[in-house]
Parts: sequence; structure tokens; C-alpha cells
Amino acid sequence: MTDSSQVYVREVGPRDGLQHEQTWLDTADKLNWIEQLGEAGLTYIEITSFVSPSWIPALADADEVARTLKKSPGVTYAALVPNRKGLERALLANIDEVAIFLSASETHNQKNINADTESALARLSRVAEEARQSGKAVRGYLSMAFGCPYEGKVEVDEVERLAERLFEMGVTELSLGDTIGIAGPKQIEAVISRLGRMIPLERLALHPHNTYGTGLANIYAAFQLGIRRFDGSTGGIGGCPYARGASGNVATEDLVYLMQTLGAKTGNDLVRLTSSAQWIEKRLGRPLPSSQLQLSKEEGRCL
Amino acid sequence: MTDSSQVYVREVGPRDGLQHEQTWLDTADKLNWIEQLGEAGLTYIEITSFVSPSWIPALADADEVARTLKKSPGVTYAALVPNRKGLERALLANIDEVAIFLSASETHNQKNINADTESALARLSRVAEEARQSGKAVRGYLSMAFGCPYEGKVEVDEVERLAERLFEMGVTELSLGDTIGIAGPKQIEAVISRLGRMIPLERLALHPHNTYGTGLANIYAAFQLGIRRFDGSTGGIGGCPYARGASGNVATEDLVYLMQTLGAKTGNDLVRLTSSAQWIEKRLGRPLPSSQLQLSKEEGRCL
Repeated sequence: MTDSSQVYVREVGPRDGLQHEQTWLDTADKLNWIEQLGEAGLTYIEITSFVSPSWIPALADADEVARTLKKSPGVTYAALVPNRKGLERALLANIDEVAIFLSASETHNQKNINADTESALARLSRVAEEARQSGKAVRGYLSMAFGCPYEGKVEVDEVERLAERLFEMGVTELSLGDTIGIAGPKQIEAVISRLGRMIPLERLALHPHNTYGTGLANIYAAFQLGIRRFDGSTGGIGGCPYARGASGNVATEDLVYLMQTLGAKTGNDLVRLTSSAQWIEKRLGRPLPSSQLQLSKEEGRCL
Repeated sequence: MTDSSQVYVREVGPRDGLQHEQTWLDTADKLNWIEQLGEAGLTYIEITSFVSPSWIPALADADEVARTLKKSPGVTYAALVPNRKGLERALLANIDEVAIFLSASETHNQKNINADTESALARLSRVAEEARQSGKAVRGYLSMAFGCPYEGKVEVDEVERLAERLFEMGVTELSLGDTIGIAGPKQIEAVISRLGRMIPLERLALHPHNTYGTGLANIYAAFQLGIRRFDGSTGGIGGCPYARGASGNVATEDLVYLMQTLGAKTGNDLVRLTSSAQWIEKRLGRPLPSSQLQLSKEEGRCL
């Protein structure tokens, strides 16, 4: 039995949020933050990425973060894993769940991971198999699923084809990434409706970015179609370092607020999430775009 | 015949946007800005408010703005008018259209205009009648239609009752204000569905604020129900002065972007709107929350 008002928030701040940050966050701060997120009721936290430190210096302490983490019961601690080397590290650190990623755009795969889509699929297939053999669930990301900075439009046919391939590898959940935040609600509906013909909706998640301000509108459109799994990043961390002040991931606390207005249950504590956003904003030393965070600084009331 | 893809944007930046601004904007700058907005294809601009200058100092030059404005053909220049004194000034300045406002909350009317709702209705009725006798169309605002900072929940019954009263006065269009930005899409749907039982949807507009980040989600919900009239403010000006960085009105350019993703036609030029947002941001000397504006500052591409 599924409770249609239950929504599952996947917190990606410590990974997707931090990966482009210019400010180094100490390992102790990362651990403290992840602990706060668990205390705010998040049950799924992507804590780091086992990529090469030279590729993403901000997450160079992945092994230490994952190994020394104080785990809370009921929380799944996941990490991004790009290849078998990364998986080896992730398994050594005893991560709960593994996330693998692929772009829906051929050009973006070439530029981002220096491999064509077919080679990437072959590599991911081996990673997924080994992870499952080690008893780890595997989550998939399909980035650029709604548009690509190089190719522009991304065909729904291709999104569907790659989604099928990832499910064939045994991913338990596929997160559809609007990585550059370009989608509008109609496109969200078009892609989800198509994928929903063959994939149970509880296997799909939306990974929205708020670059154009449409993040919550897109979440609402997906929610209306029955999607109940959404990725968010505390504070809305995850913006592009080249865009002063531009929004990145949808702020987890704004997502949770929207869900409250929809009568959906997340199990997350909005006050604690917002405190955590305040905390990480102070550590990073730059204003974060979250609306709840801005509101928490309000000094008076405007009528 | 109505073209269901046509959307009408009501620009309220020069009035609602500026009214709480701490920075004085010179009359020449206001005129320049309003001219830019017309050149960006906006066909309805609320240019000022004929309230007492002691009440809203930022708009103390209402008469001069309205009188010296270089009008473009095809653009309706409207102004807010609180009472007969204000109407007299508005008529002297030959404003095209008059906007009157009422709060859906009894307490807010008391605190905001020092009058109970019934007395306010009586006053507005006289203003509307005189305006119409002078050949001016009258637009109505019903603020706090989705929630009040004093009373919390605002009953749909009361919103419906007051909407009826305003239409009885002859308003041609009623703008439903989510003045504190608290609404979620389901509430937008509930209120509009109710009002839509007796009021043609082309007589209703939504005046969303983005305080909690739900502005575009709310617009999308209203659009799905058939609403085609939306208020926006260039740059997203209109935030509460007590809230550092908090969003106010939905940015016109973000609204226009959303409409583009929906395949709707606004007739507005997104590039020009964004330039205008850049211009006004510079004049006001504080960062404005518009997503398009942030993106226009982007110095690189994030993948």
C-alpha cells in the first residue's frame, strides 16, 4: 500500500551542492552538517562523491567523510561513484547506497567524462553489477534530461532509451536531472508521462535546479503526475560558480515548504532544515538563494 | 474569440515594486524606466500611486510622473487610487485607468487603512463610480486573498463575497493578491475554482509574490485553470524592506520566461525586460531577486 501523500526527499547538498563550491569546507564541518541533516528528518543523504580529488577538489575528503560519519538509524547514506575505482573506495568506506550518473546528451558525456554514451553505459553496467554483488542498492542519475547546454533540446526518445538501459542494470530509482534548470512544467509533464508508461512512478525522482526560478513549478507539475521523490540541496547550494548569486539546486527547505502547502508529508523539520541552511551559509561565506533562509533573516513584518 | 495561448502581463513595478523602496528614485529615472517597460512590449503598466506622499514617500512625485509621461500607443498607464482626493489627482494627470484596493482581511483593512471592510467598500464604491463617470476603467485589487499576517487563514467565502462586491462596483478586472506570498498551488486552485463559478476567468488576474519561492508554481497552477492575466514587477522589486534579500513580487521577466516554456504568448521581449531589470537594479543599488537578472550576470557556463 502506498500513501500518496508521502513524499521522499533526497538531500544532495553535501555532494551536488558542494562539488562546485570555491570555499573549502573542513571535513569536521561536513560531518557536522550531515549530522544536522539527519536530525532534521532527512532519510536519504548523498554525502560525497568518490571521484578523483583532482577532478572535484571540494570533495577530496570523500573517504574520511564516509568512514568517520556518525550514522543515524533510518537514514540512507549514499555517495556518487563514477567508476570501479570509486566503487572500491565507496565499499571500503561502507557506504549504504551507490549513485551512478549518465548524461542524456551525447555531447555532454563527451565533454564531461570524455566518453561516448555507449562506453559510459558499459562502464556503469560493471559498476552497478559489482555494487549489487556487494549488497548495495544503486541509484541512477540521468542528467541533462530536459536540455543540454551544448545540444539544446534533448529528445524524449533518448531519455526513455537511456532510462531503460539504466533500469536494466538494476538501478532501484532513477533521478531525472534538469541539470541546467531550463525545463518548464509542460516539459516535465511530457518526459514523466512518457517514462511513466513503462516505469513505475515510485522508481522515478526529479532532480530540479532553480536556475530560471521554475524549480518549484516543475516539482509541482511532477507531483501532480504522481512523482513523490525529489532531490533538494539545503540552502539551495549548488549554483554555478561562474554565475554570481545564481540559483543551483532547489533548496530542500523550499521543497519541503511547497510539500506542506500541498498537504504532503515529508517527515522533515522545516525549522531545523532552515537552521542548517543558516549554518552552512555562514560556513561558505556567501548568501544562499533559499527563500526559507531569506525569510529566517527577516527583522520585521511587511504588510 | 479568445486565444487561449495569449497571456496579459500587468507590470506593477513602478508602483507596487517601488512603494517600499528605501532608495529614492528620481522622477526622471522613473519616467525613463516606465518608457523602457513600454519598449519591452508591456501593454499595461501601473506607474504610481495617488496616495498621500506622507504615507508612501517613494511615490511622492505621482502627479509629475503621470503628467509628464511620454505615452506609447497601445499601452495602458494605470495608477493606484485610494480615495476621492487621489482620484481627483489621477484625473487631473489624465491617467488611463484607475486601480482600487481592498484587503480580504478585516484586521488588515483596519491596520492598513484604518477602516473596517464595510466602510472601505463604501469609499471605494464612490471612487469607482466617479472614475467610471469620467470614462476611466477601474481595476480592483483584493489583497491578502490567500492569507493574512494578522488573521492567518482567509476564508474563501469572504474572498468570494468581496470579489462580488467589487464587481458590483464595475471593476473590469480583479487581481487576487497573494500579498505575503504564502499561498501554495492547491490554495490558488481552490480560490480560483470557487471564484470561477460566477466570474469569467478573463476578469480575474493573479498577483503573486515570491516570498516563499512558490510564485511561479502558483502562476502555473492558475494558468492550468485558465487564468491568463498576471501581475509582475521587473527585477522582482517589491520585497519587504525589513527582509534582507527577501523576494517580493514575482519578477516580470521570470513570469515571461515561464510563459515561454508553456508555449504562451505575452508579446514581451525577454532581453529588453532583463536589460530594464539590470538598469533598475543599478539605480536602486541593491541586488534584485529575479532569476533572469542573475543569469544575465553569468560569466561562464556551468555543466
